[in-house]
Amino acid sequence: MKVAIVGLGLIGGSIALALKKSTRGSELTIIGIPRREETLKEALEKTIIDEGTIDLKKGVSDADVVFICTPISLVTQIIDEIGHSLKPGAIVTDVASSKESIVAKAESLLPPEVFFVGGHPMAGREKVKLAAAESGLFKDRIYILTPTKKSDRHAVKALTDLITLLGAKILKLDPVEHDRVVAAISHMPLAISAALVNTIAEHKHHQKEMVTCASTGFRDTTRIASGDPALGIDMFLTNNEAVLEMIDEFKSALTRLEAAIREHDTDAIAKLLKQAQNFRDDIYR
Amino acid sequence: MKVAIVGLGLIGGSIALALKKSTRGSELTIIGIPRREETLKEALEKTIIDEGTIDLKKGVSDADVVFICTPISLVTQIIDEIGHSLKPGAIVTDVASSKESIVAKAESLLPPEVFFVGGHPMAGREKVKLAAAESGLFKDRIYILTPTKKSDRHAVKALTDLITLLGAKILKLDPVEHDRVVAAISHMPLAISAALVNTIAEHKHHQKEMVTCASTGFRDTTRIASGDPALGIDMFLTNNEAVLEMIDEFKSALTRLEAAIREHDTDAIAKLLKQAQNFRDDIYR
Repeated sequence: MKVAIVGLGLIGGSIALALKKSTRGSELTIIGIPRREETLKEALEKTIIDEGTIDLKKGVSDADVVFICTPISLVTQIIDEIGHSLKPGAIVTDVASSKESIVAKAESLLPPEVFFVGGHPMAGREKVKLAAAESGLFKDRIYILTPTKKSDRHAVKALTDLITLLGAKILKLDPVEHDRVVAAISHMPLAISAALVNTIAEHKHHQKEMVTCASTGFRDTTRIASGDPALGIDMFLTNNEAVLEMIDEFKSALTRLEAAIREHDTDAIAKLLKQAQNFRDDIYR
Repeated sequence: MKVAIVGLGLIGGSIALALKKSTRGSELTIIGIPRREETLKEALEKTIIDEGTIDLKKGVSDADVVFICTPISLVTQIIDEIGHSLKPGAIVTDVASSKESIVAKAESLLPPEVFFVGGHPMAGREKVKLAAAESGLFKDRIYILTPTKKSDRHAVKALTDLITLLGAKILKLDPVEHDRVVAAISHMPLAISAALVNTIAEHKHHQKEMVTCASTGFRDTTRIASGDPALGIDMFLTNNEAVLEMIDEFKSALTRLEAAIREHDTDAIAKLLKQAQNFRDDIYR
């Protein structure tokens, strides 16, 4: 089976490494298709891929499965470009963190003899380059697939088998449902985390002392704000509506806690802090 | 020199261990004064303290320095109780994370021949019991002292010397200034973190999928929400005004980012995410 990977960053590189290392590694030919010659050279030298090219159409022409692992903003453009270079029966998937708009566009752009199933591995790092790629990135992590009514059953099955090889746990969600879930636990929290840093960054008095005293609590609460801004922009623009809805819900939750603090209402503060503690401890016990 | 420690939890126990292990350890007698017999037994068995009692007045009567390491809500009550049992020239300090109200009360409650200097070590853990105490807890961490115009210069100097033995870096702040700084980088972020968990805890749809998909980003952003609710209640009640002011500033920062997202304003989103990334990377580089 030939697997083409468009975009060789952290995710694309890690998929290549994980597939090669899997029980079916010897049956798979991994074709790497990065944007730059330099990355292609690096991937070949490190034997992360079996073969490769920077010619997108040529690279995908013989593939059975194509993973599109570029930044979100390029995914539909690439799908549009490769559509008529793919062989009949080829399966295309992506790894973008927003799904509704990408899945709809992909389904309308691709010719009928090619199958699309959206995907989103819940694994990331602050470093997004190929150098950070590792075969264990997806081990025991959730990998969301977003099949729709239009999805081919056999394509979903084939992709599920392939992703299982990565060591990931598969969760199937409808694209709209996916976007709400990810807005809640990833995209909205990034907005909160960035706003938290900006509160201090824009504060006028004692800013130096605040920076000096910032300890492990502030460090962890704001860690995701150190991620690549390009990823954040893509999340906020492509998953716009769900992110705004979740920010609204967050603001309501904060307003309730704020009111309890303003009124010195010990019982109400206790109730809200205990709810948060219990709910979180149940997730990460 | 005799050092009494009222309250043997994580902080009190760690101060005892760090002082005993310091270069002046052999000159110091550590008197432990926990609330419960059980804790006293544990502290003596583990030789965390040299001697001890659960009789507060008796325990402090011979001390040169008294560290009050109880929950915030008990500090002024204890200061009131011990005032007339202390010997002239004794120095009293606390470790509470709010300072303005405690320092003002302590200065008015204690007799004139006893010296008070407020303190706040910027070191904590989710576990607050004696069993978690360790001599290295304060190493290279900030330890804030909040002397006022009323503070005795020699008392401040003596306490500074003692705290230096813990391995901490001392930062002197006015109590009001302290409360604003700590509201910004510790108390307000707890409110944000708890509200973030509560947004999911109170969300009606797909909550199960959200929990399943919650990854390292959500875990870190919400870590402090798993702390002891009793500590949070004390922070919000004793540092009420500064916390509410910082929540207001946070809401303004979030509203700016939200507006940029709503308007699909790529430049504005980029500017705000880059500001957050740069400011945070400067703190934790």
